[in-house]
Amino acid sequence: MGKNARLIVASGEECSDMRYAAGFSTPDEFIWFAAGGHRGVVMSPLEFNRATRQAAPGVTVHADAEFSTTGNRVEEILALAAKFGAEGFEVPGDFPLALADRLRVAGIAINAADGVFFPEREFKSKLEVSMIVRAQRIGEAGCRRAFDVLREATVRGDGVIVWRGAVLTSEILRAEIDVEIVRMGGLPTGTICAGGVQSSQPHNTGSGILMADAPIVMDIFPRAADTGYWGDLTRTVVKGKAPSLVKRAYDAVLSARELGKSLVGVGANPGEIHRRAAKSLEKAGFLTGRDEHGDYGFFHGLGHGVGLDIHEAPRLSPRNSQLLRGGEVVTVEPGVYYPAWGGIRLEDLMYVAPGGAALCLTELEDFLEIP
Amino acid sequence: MGKNARLIVASGEECSDMRYAAGFSTPDEFIWFAAGGHRGVVMSPLEFNRATRQAAPGVTVHADAEFSTTGNRVEEILALAAKFGAEGFEVPGDFPLALADRLRVAGIAINAADGVFFPEREFKSKLEVSMIVRAQRIGEAGCRRAFDVLREATVRGDGVIVWRGAVLTSEILRAEIDVEIVRMGGLPTGTICAGGVQSSQPHNTGSGILMADAPIVMDIFPRAADTGYWGDLTRTVVKGKAPSLVKRAYDAVLSARELGKSLVGVGANPGEIHRRAAKSLEKAGFLTGRDEHGDYGFFHGLGHGVGLDIHEAPRLSPRNSQLLRGGEVVTVEPGVYYPAWGGIRLEDLMYVAPGGAALCLTELEDFLEIP
Repeated sequence: MGKNARLIVASGEECSDMRYAAGFSTPDEFIWFAAGGHRGVVMSPLEFNRATRQAAPGVTVHADAEFSTTGNRVEEILALAAKFGAEGFEVPGDFPLALADRLRVAGIAINAADGVFFPEREFKSKLEVSMIVRAQRIGEAGCRRAFDVLREATVRGDGVIVWRGAVLTSEILRAEIDVEIVRMGGLPTGTICAGGVQSSQPHNTGSGILMADAPIVMDIFPRAADTGYWGDLTRTVVKGKAPSLVKRAYDAVLSARELGKSLVGVGANPGEIHRRAAKSLEKAGFLTGRDEHGDYGFFHGLGHGVGLDIHEAPRLSPRNSQLLRGGEVVTVEPGVYYPAWGGIRLEDLMYVAPGGAALCLTELEDFLEIP
Repeated sequence: MGKNARLIVASGEECSDMRYAAGFSTPDEFIWFAAGGHRGVVMSPLEFNRATRQAAPGVTVHADAEFSTTGNRVEEILALAAKFGAEGFEVPGDFPLALADRLRVAGIAINAADGVFFPEREFKSKLEVSMIVRAQRIGEAGCRRAFDVLREATVRGDGVIVWRGAVLTSEILRAEIDVEIVRMGGLPTGTICAGGVQSSQPHNTGSGILMADAPIVMDIFPRAADTGYWGDLTRTVVKGKAPSLVKRAYDAVLSARELGKSLVGVGANPGEIHRRAAKSLEKAGFLTGRDEHGDYGFFHGLGHGVGLDIHEAPRLSPRNSQLLRGGEVVTVEPGVYYPAWGGIRLEDLMYVAPGGAALCLTELEDFLEIP
């Protein structure tokens, strides 16, 4: 195989490796390659001009007609392999199998990368951190909008929350958050506003009437529309008065989050950070397990990397013992979930600054009750 | 290989085949399989409850712990293959190569489907058409919001459009459209508001100041947040007075669109529809070609299928001669683009009703000038 020849075939919108490599994003798939000291993209007429304006430094923009006039991907890749002296390519693990098999039949060696394709994506440049911070500010604005709605809202005699004359639902609250995100230049995807027992399911996005005196989990993760970088934050609030069990759970989760954040830094063991946070929840009396209703307690990882993907390396999970090296951006998001009453999750975003203390990238107040 | 055993490993959000097969969507990847007359999904604890509530009829929800306690995908798939008597699986063409190669090494035959994985996705049920129509209504509301903004706007002496005391930009107009989409329950992604010469690049999303007396292309394609089905529409307008060349281009594109729509129906040849529309643009004097500035004229396909993917089969492109069979939902979107002055694109959505006339699913007025 030509030394270090590499290939991606994907759309920039679906594939963050492509966005990282090419420097821009497209709705339709295209080719990026590196071979014989040359890096290039191969574009259809529809995207050629965009590519010439936005391609990353050092990336040459080729018209697809340079390699094939039939639009056949295998032909294009064979032609560019011949031109740049590549006998095969390393490709990302999620490279499409059908194309890989066709290229192999055509005599091109295709090897899926062992692990991530650009390990350097885990370690953010200052510019990347600033783009993540901007996405985070968009999410914070969305969350503050929800706080405002809940402050303006009133509670009916039967405990239903009412806002601007109508019953407040998860859908309405989510739309208010998402509208703020759009106005700030973000793409809202899957914003969680889950109330009551729905909040006991960490990925339940929430639906229907919101009730007072019960937790409302708001997990907000906008993507900046222009840069493609994500933010991620979670707050849990109660409109009215929180029951004492909910208060205790909130305090336990807040303590676990602050403990976890204090342990994040260069040289720290992600698995150990997870275990320490989990242990603090257990010690506070919030046990984890599984019964006939499903999982309860703290049954997800403590955090994950954030960048061009909303979930990327490194994971703060019990299985990850690869020490933090500096440059990572990770969430710290402990939670406890009980089908009987709901859940609490609190999430901040941390930057593992190289050669210094870790920085919290979230600037958003913490409180449980909204009177 | 066990007869007809099939496998998908993907997230529902990234993979429409998964959403179609499983009946629900998730942010994280999971397994869908069909083997030995059994169809099932394999879920992590985090998604188990959602899956049991939302899985499609006939799909059994399995906990991942049933097949592996280590979270290893290959182990899980080996265990389920053993349990359901599959020696191999047919997988979608975009199945991740790294996992395919690991499964092959472990002795499981993996064959990428030849073409689309669920050919039946091309032919929409009445329920699916209704979900596409709802997404289309969301897009229409977004477009009408843009019409309203442009009606309210005024034109400054230097030709700049002003709205609510500020210069109107592509970004502001897009945000107004996207906010309406979010309020209606849609996800706005990549909304195009391209003015002036930017409109000569079909995929340019638009940026900066919008000027009067020049085309503004608005291509709006929201996804319904709950169902995952897309809508797609394009209108081109001029604030103020359109130059006569722009007027002629608009009339030519509108005629080509109506011609294309009139040709859509059971038994029609997509390539022929494209050619007829292209020919009508040429006859009106709008020539297609390529010079040192790039492509000009009409240089994209006339249309594409819309469903759980925004671009899916069938294509209305010169290369597609597979006759329409009934049940397809396709866009008809001719356009002409000239770097010297900009572009015009007009797009409606058609349902190829089986056993009857094709129906236009777009309910949105057509006009060029907004005084």
